[in-house]
Amino acid sequence: MTQSSLVGREYRGYRSNGGSIIAYDAKIPELGPKDVVVRITHSGLCASDVAMVKLGAPVALGHEGVGIVELIGSDVKQLKVGDRVGGGYHRDACGSCKFCLKGKDIYCYDRIVLGEGDYDNGTFGQFYIGKETFLHKIPDNIPSEYAAPLQCAGVTVYTALRETVEPGMRVGIYGIGGLGHLAIQFAAKMGTEVVVYSTSADKEQEARAWGASEFHLVSAMYDTIKAPIDVLVITGSYYPDFERAMTKEFLSRNGIIVPLTAPMGAMNLNTRNMFFDGYRVHASLVGSRAMHAETLEFAAKNDIKPLIQVTKLENLGSLQKAISDLGANAIRYRAVFEI
Amino acid sequence: MTQSSLVGREYRGYRSNGGSIIAYDAKIPELGPKDVVVRITHSGLCASDVAMVKLGAPVALGHEGVGIVELIGSDVKQLKVGDRVGGGYHRDACGSCKFCLKGKDIYCYDRIVLGEGDYDNGTFGQFYIGKETFLHKIPDNIPSEYAAPLQCAGVTVYTALRETVEPGMRVGIYGIGGLGHLAIQFAAKMGTEVVVYSTSADKEQEARAWGASEFHLVSAMYDTIKAPIDVLVITGSYYPDFERAMTKEFLSRNGIIVPLTAPMGAMNLNTRNMFFDGYRVHASLVGSRAMHAETLEFAAKNDIKPLIQVTKLENLGSLQKAISDLGANAIRYRAVFEI
Repeated sequence: MTQSSLVGREYRGYRSNGGSIIAYDAKIPELGPKDVVVRITHSGLCASDVAMVKLGAPVALGHEGVGIVELIGSDVKQLKVGDRVGGGYHRDACGSCKFCLKGKDIYCYDRIVLGEGDYDNGTFGQFYIGKETFLHKIPDNIPSEYAAPLQCAGVTVYTALRETVEPGMRVGIYGIGGLGHLAIQFAAKMGTEVVVYSTSADKEQEARAWGASEFHLVSAMYDTIKAPIDVLVITGSYYPDFERAMTKEFLSRNGIIVPLTAPMGAMNLNTRNMFFDGYRVHASLVGSRAMHAETLEFAAKNDIKPLIQVTKLENLGSLQKAISDLGANAIRYRAVFEI
Repeated sequence: MTQSSLVGREYRGYRSNGGSIIAYDAKIPELGPKDVVVRITHSGLCASDVAMVKLGAPVALGHEGVGIVELIGSDVKQLKVGDRVGGGYHRDACGSCKFCLKGKDIYCYDRIVLGEGDYDNGTFGQFYIGKETFLHKIPDNIPSEYAAPLQCAGVTVYTALRETVEPGMRVGIYGIGGLGHLAIQFAAKMGTEVVVYSTSADKEQEARAWGASEFHLVSAMYDTIKAPIDVLVITGSYYPDFERAMTKEFLSRNGIIVPLTAPMGAMNLNTRNMFFDGYRVHASLVGSRAMHAETLEFAAKNDIKPLIQVTKLENLGSLQKAISDLGANAIRYRAVFEI
C-alpha cells in the first residue's frame, strides 16, 4: 500500500452522539510530520467509552488500540511501517511544560486525551491517526488481543501502583473487574502482598491464581481483617464507606487510598481519622508515556495478561452488545474487539 | 535541688474535665530510666487543647512546652540537668515497629500523644515528665517563649511542607492563624513562592513581611488567581469549597491538598477532577522526632519566629481567658503562657 493510496482512504469508525452510538465514515488525512497511521487490529472496551456515550460527548470511541503501522509522517524516527504498536487514550502534549519535562505529560495543560481536544479519532475505527511517542511498541511476546487492554487499564493500574507501593507492602485491591484483575497481577509481581476485596465469592480462585494471598468478601471485609493494608487501590465502580475504611485496623496509619475510578458524587473522607492517622489520597489518570512503555515491558517480562473476551466488531450491534454486557457485569474481565 | 527533694514534689497542672477545665495537683513520680523531669517555663496554647475540653476528654492540658531539665532517669544519655528542651505532643513510641524504624514514629501504633495513652501530663503544669528522645534541645538563639509554639504548630507545618513541597513551587496557605503564620515563613524559607488566602484584608502587610508574594481574600480568591498553585496547605478551621478549589485553574494538575486541621464533618472532594487532574491529598499529624528536631534547627537558622501574646498562667482564669480569646479569633497568632 503506497502513501498516495492510503491518504484519503475512507474507513469506518464509531462515535458517541447525543446519548447513543453511531457508525461514521472518516478519511485518512494528509499526515503531519509526527503523525502515524495505525491499522487497528484489536481494541479493548473501557468504561470510559461508555461514560462518553452517557455524557453525550461527540467523541470517536475506542482508546485501547493495537495495530500495525501503515504510514508515517516525514519526521517520525522511532517507528516504521510494519511495527506493532498500541495507544489511544493519551494523544498529545506540548512537550515543553514542566509536566512534559518531568515525565508527567499526562498532566500537561495542553494534553490531548480521549474526549479532550480530539473528537474524531478512536481505536474502534479501522484506522487510528496517532503521534509518534504517544504510540508504543508492543513486546513480541504479547499477542495483540492481550496487549489491547494494557493500553488503558494496564497503564492505569501499573502507574498508580508504581507511584504508591513498595515491595513487601500489603496492597488492597477493592473490586475485581477490568482494572482490578490486572492490579492483582501487577501488584503481586511488584513484590507486594495482595489482599483482594470482592462482592463475588466465585472470583476467589482466580484472584489467588493471579497472586492474591488473601480474599475477603466486601460484605464482611471489616470483620475478616488479618492486618491493616498499606495501600487501598479502588478499582470498582463504587467507593467503600470511608468512615470504616479509614480506620487504622483496616488501612494502616500513613496509608494511601488510590481511587482509580470516578463514581458520581463527592468522595466523602473521614476527616478526623485522615488527620490523626496521617492518611494520603493519590489519584492518578491512566499514565504518562514513560509509564506506558514500562507497563508493556513489565507485563511482557512477568507474563501478565488480561482475561479477555474477544469478539469481532462487525457493526453497531457488536458494540452495543458489549456495552450492555459490561453494564451487566457479564464480562470477565475485558471485552476486546477484532477490528 | 536534689533528686530526693524533687521526687514526690507536688505541682499544679490543668486538665479537661467533663466539658470544662480544672486545676489539679500532681506529684513528680519516681523516674523510669528514660524519664526526664522538665520545669516548664513556657507553653503555647493550641486549638487541640480546646478540642480536648470540648470533647470532655479527661486529659492534662498543654503540649507546646519549653523548660529546663531538672532531673534525669538512670539511662538518659542525650540530655542533662540544666538543658533547655521542648516537647509535649508526642510522648512515646515502641521504638521497634516499621514506623519507628523509618522515622515515622508519630504513626507508631503504640504511640503516646496528647489524649492517647497519657492523661496526667501536660505542659501547662509546672513540671512535665517526658521521655528522652521525645524532648528536643532548643537552639540557643530561640528564646523560650518563641520556642513554645514551634513544639506543635511549628512541627506540624514544617513536617507537612517538607513532605510535599519543593523549591520553586507555588504554595498556597489557606488561613492565617497559629499554623498559617508559621507556614508562610517556613514555606518562604524553603524557597517556594507563597500565596496566601485570608478572610482578613488587614493581615496582608504582615503576610508579605513573612515572605508571601501574593495575598488573596478568600471571598475573591477564585477570581484573582494569577497562576495555579502546586500545593494547598489548609491551616484554617474550615475547609475551602473543594468543588472550586479542585480545578486546574486554582490548583495545578497533580497538585497536593494538605489538610492540617480537622473540622467537623467529612472532607467532600471533587471526585471527577480528583481523577482527571490527578490530585493528591496528604494529611499529616504534628511530626515524628527527626522532623521535630529539624523544625527547631531550621527555625533557628532562618530566624523563623511565631508572633506571640505572652501572659502569665496565674490561675484557671488566665487559661479560660486565653481560650475565649482564641475562640474569638482575637489572638495574633499564638498565646503563650509563662508558667
